[in-house]
Amino acid sequence: MSKKFEGIIAYPVTPFMANGAIDVDMLTELIDRLIDSGVHAIAPLGSTGESAYLSDDEWETAARSSVAAVAGRVPTVVGISELTTLGAIKRARFAQRVGADAIMVLPISYWKLTEAEIIAHYAAIGDSVSIPIMLYNNPATSGIDMQPELIARICKEVPSVTMVKESTGDLQRMHRLKQLTNGTIPFYNGSNPLAFAALNAGAAGWCTAAPNLNAELPLALYDAIKRNDILAARATFEKVLPLLQFIVKVGLPTSVKAGLALQGIEAGEPRLPLRPLTPAALEDLSGILANLEGTPKTSASIA
Amino acid sequence: MSKKFEGIIAYPVTPFMANGAIDVDMLTELIDRLIDSGVHAIAPLGSTGESAYLSDDEWETAARSSVAAVAGRVPTVVGISELTTLGAIKRARFAQRVGADAIMVLPISYWKLTEAEIIAHYAAIGDSVSIPIMLYNNPATSGIDMQPELIARICKEVPSVTMVKESTGDLQRMHRLKQLTNGTIPFYNGSNPLAFAALNAGAAGWCTAAPNLNAELPLALYDAIKRNDILAARATFEKVLPLLQFIVKVGLPTSVKAGLALQGIEAGEPRLPLRPLTPAALEDLSGILANLEGTPKTSASIA
Amino acid sequence: MSKKFEGIIAYPVTPFMANGAIDVDMLTELIDRLIDSGVHAIAPLGSTGESAYLSDDEWETAARSSVAAVAGRVPTVVGISELTTLGAIKRARFAQRVGADAIMVLPISYWKLTEAEIIAHYAAIGDSVSIPIMLYNNPATSGIDMQPELIARICKEVPSVTMVKESTGDLQRMHRLKQLTNGTIPFYNGSNPLAFAALNAGAAGWCTAAPNLNAELPLALYDAIKRNDILAARATFEKVLPLLQFIVKVGLPTSVKAGLALQGIEAGEPRLPLRPLTPAALEDLSGILANLEGTPKTSASIA
Amino acid sequence: MSKKFEGIIAYPVTPFMANGAIDVDMLTELIDRLIDSGVHAIAPLGSTGESAYLSDDEWETAARSSVAAVAGRVPTVVGISELTTLGAIKRARFAQRVGADAIMVLPISYWKLTEAEIIAHYAAIGDSVSIPIMLYNNPATSGIDMQPELIARICKEVPSVTMVKESTGDLQRMHRLKQLTNGTIPFYNGSNPLAFAALNAGAAGWCTAAPNLNAELPLALYDAIKRNDILAARATFEKVLPLLQFIVKVGLPTSVKAGLALQGIEAGEPRLPLRPLTPAALEDLSGILANLEGTPKTSASIA
Repeated sequence: MSKKFEGIIAYPVTPFMANGAIDVDMLTELIDRLIDSGVHAIAPLGSTGESAYLSDDEWETAARSSVAAVAGRVPTVVGISELTTLGAIKRARFAQRVGADAIMVLPISYWKLTEAEIIAHYAAIGDSVSIPIMLYNNPATSGIDMQPELIARICKEVPSVTMVKESTGDLQRMHRLKQLTNGTIPFYNGSNPLAFAALNAGAAGWCTAAPNLNAELPLALYDAIKRNDILAARATFEKVLPLLQFIVKVGLPTSVKAGLALQGIEAGEPRLPLRPLTPAALEDLSGILANLEGTPKTSASIA
Repeated sequence: MSKKFEGIIAYPVTPFMANGAIDVDMLTELIDRLIDSGVHAIAPLGSTGESAYLSDDEWETAARSSVAAVAGRVPTVVGISELTTLGAIKRARFAQRVGADAIMVLPISYWKLTEAEIIAHYAAIGDSVSIPIMLYNNPATSGIDMQPELIARICKEVPSVTMVKESTGDLQRMHRLKQLTNGTIPFYNGSNPLAFAALNAGAAGWCTAAPNLNAELPLALYDAIKRNDILAARATFEKVLPLLQFIVKVGLPTSVKAGLALQGIEAGEPRLPLRPLTPAALEDLSGILANLEGTPKTSASIA
Repeated sequence: MSKKFEGIIAYPVTPFMANGAIDVDMLTELIDRLIDSGVHAIAPLGSTGESAYLSDDEWETAARSSVAAVAGRVPTVVGISELTTLGAIKRARFAQRVGADAIMVLPISYWKLTEAEIIAHYAAIGDSVSIPIMLYNNPATSGIDMQPELIARICKEVPSVTMVKESTGDLQRMHRLKQLTNGTIPFYNGSNPLAFAALNAGAAGWCTAAPNLNAELPLALYDAIKRNDILAARATFEKVLPLLQFIVKVGLPTSVKAGLALQGIEAGEPRLPLRPLTPAALEDLSGILANLEGTPKTSASIA
Repeated sequence: MSKKFEGIIAYPVTPFMANGAIDVDMLTELIDRLIDSGVHAIAPLGSTGESAYLSDDEWETAARSSVAAVAGRVPTVVGISELTTLGAIKRARFAQRVGADAIMVLPISYWKLTEAEIIAHYAAIGDSVSIPIMLYNNPATSGIDMQPELIARICKEVPSVTMVKESTGDLQRMHRLKQLTNGTIPFYNGSNPLAFAALNAGAAGWCTAAPNLNAELPLALYDAIKRNDILAARATFEKVLPLLQFIVKVGLPTSVKAGLALQGIEAGEPRLPLRPLTPAALEDLSGILANLEGTPKTSASIA
């Protein structure tokens, strides 16, 4: 039976050495650190992992090393965002071969795709592997926007698609997806500032890069929701929100790598054309991280 | 001291007689019915009240009759959405004279306004009355989008502005407003499908036309949030959501008047060019209302 | 037979006296000045005329006075942008009674209208008068966007609608409208910076407030197009473009009234919340107007 | 001295054999056919050439073969749209080495780029080659929108950037770019339905895939503009417009390859997830191509 994805799904960055190559040792260390902090699953090669900027060889190295580093302690879902169907199938098979528990598939558009083309893309990938697929909707990076109606149809027509990650930041889509699938398809939130609302709305998990810099608060938020405690969840979310706002505004690889360096961890710089944080932004981030240290205070009243 | 606005703030429609005139008796009856159902405040002459479609005389009739009908049982906030500053001042003074507890002010744009023009508009209205102002942001109907930064500035520079109604449906603006005002300015949700998320995020109230057709579920949602019970709140919200989706999609006056007729209450039709529901849409609404009758079931698990 | 609208259709501002009342003498003078400058038609009570900000009485005064001032020297089209169908009919009849040659009808939305509602709105107005209707599409101010397909359908179903003014600034809509109507419906450009392209594409005229400040260049542009001279048209357009960019950016009533004042004509200020130009913007406008004085130079080459 | 790009710049598709490999012989034939038809320049590896869907090896094969096929008969500009700066530099050098006269550079975003990052990207590429760069703005496919102000700044700071291709379809940007650069930087239109307006506005050329299916009309349009004949240009444009509308709506590789097959040229199918035209769409295209055969009729009047 396949492993269950629930809770805080953490996205490691892909660390580079000074010569530009992937730093496999550091990648292993980053994943250990995330698992030690208590996150519920690991998702290598997501947007945070700069997967779009890697060569084929690098991608395979990162996928293999990440699954090996996780070593079955928590479930692993490997991100696949390829322009061509054949390219996606090749990576899907590779991910399965090296032991991923699931793949997260983002259809990428250069040319706009019809609904039939999107469905066929998922079906072809589903036919090529036996591990489950998390459908990933993120039009801001992929250029393809799948409405809840289309997503529900894909879930019905492609049996391997058993999970949905929504990153539009539009809460109504989650409600709509739940209505359309009668609650049978777990959905995951990929929009950091929407985490509190999405978990309230019943999201099975939160896909996030934040645990690279602070895992305690995302985990506390998830626990508060599971304990049915709005007040604690709100207070926790408001405490972590400045960090979420910052990493979304600046971009995940850039901000997370800068934050790791502030914490003494050398994960290198993002790939050009992405550039390191400016000194002013670095100071902002430093202040935000320092503010996370205190205890979240509980709101006294709701309204 | 001014009355406090908290909870479910209900927006009555403006009923018309066959000859097109306002049906004051029915307006009184509708308001009685809302208050009897337990709503916490009444907001005549909002979007739902077709205020934009009324002549000056009709507007004054509706304002005077509504405040009289409420008769102090709950707080009353009268909606003002005028293109000119002088027109808005005239209505603001009228609302105060007939006994409104507050006014809700939406700046309307034909020509785009600068920030300085918007601030001056609020300041001039604030100077003309002594009752508090609820700033209302609803770019979809007004053509003016006030970002949280501008709203926070208006709250600071115009002391009469002590409440904010946000209707963009963008939850992040509520979080941002709370950050910018250190939580000192109560905010209200005006986007029906966002009600659950907004109340979770700390909204002081929910401005809604839904209670015209069903007050029990909105009140139950608000109570569940006050009881700190996510599961009950979510189940209640999911139950009422199809009604909210319908009235937002079709338009509030059109759908609420049709729903009232289904419930045996003759509030007339909306003004042309708005037209009554088609028979097919009426049947949909009838089914949605019938489904609201059962008891909200509690979700068994959160994620 | 109805008069033909072709060429430069000029939009006068509505001048106000210090006490806020319409300055009928100045309105007459402004219209005389426009006609003397050679424009081909006059369009009172457009957006430029602040018609949205006028009371019913003021609107009737402006309509009656404008048509009287034109006195048949050129065709007159009176703008009507009313929220309710009955209100639009009332104004349409008034415009016909005082002698307008045509009316320009912009459907205004507070609540979004269905296609059936928009068509019925035009049909009801068409039934109430015998003068032709120029359909006006300007979603930025009206909140209603009529696609070419809908416009073509209205032209077919409502015989009074014999002209179309397009103000979206989307040139493709003009091509599409021409395709859909087989070139039988003349279209007019209402987006100032698109004037050159629209006339090239075959627009019957250009609806513009620019002649209040400079009629010579718009007329020269139109003449160059009629002479089939791209080079002269382009050079003329590039000369007047900074003025068009300025008045669109700042807003027509505000910028035109400021420009008139610079030219020694006291048309008053726009109505609050609109405010006069800042000194810096006034200086920009002054520079732009000064630059229009020289002769347009002809581009030496096309590419 | 570098070759001048002016007029109709044609974009060949990249033909594939049944086994998926690039069909180099057919690519050569397609380029011969385009040059024989009279186009003024060839642009391999643009969007039409499915460059985003090619492996590194395939891209190099297509670049080398295309430049060889052109054999200096007309100028060649090779398209480069790479996510990483290092990848773009590698391809730029390759293009120069195999004899391209210029490169067309589209910055691609997965993560949003700051202005500083975009400028540095162009500067690094400019430093790596000695042939001129055509900056390419196409936010719909690249996810990065460069405003005219930024483009003008890049032209100033990066001397190799001597041409600009604008594909937003926003005519005002071309006027603005001309204003900002005092007409010193030639601009090219990349939005097919805007071709007539852009050439009127002074575009140095039109970058288009249409000549794969019909070169006569685009060339006739360009000639009419050069002859300063609006009427002939308009009539020609209106004749070819249905083809332009179709290929833009359906997508360039898909529609052009289908059209070539209708003309008896086997260029294969686009790469999955792109799929061949449906039979209904193919019939539409067939009708459109048949209609292009007659002589463009001249409009009798302008308005």
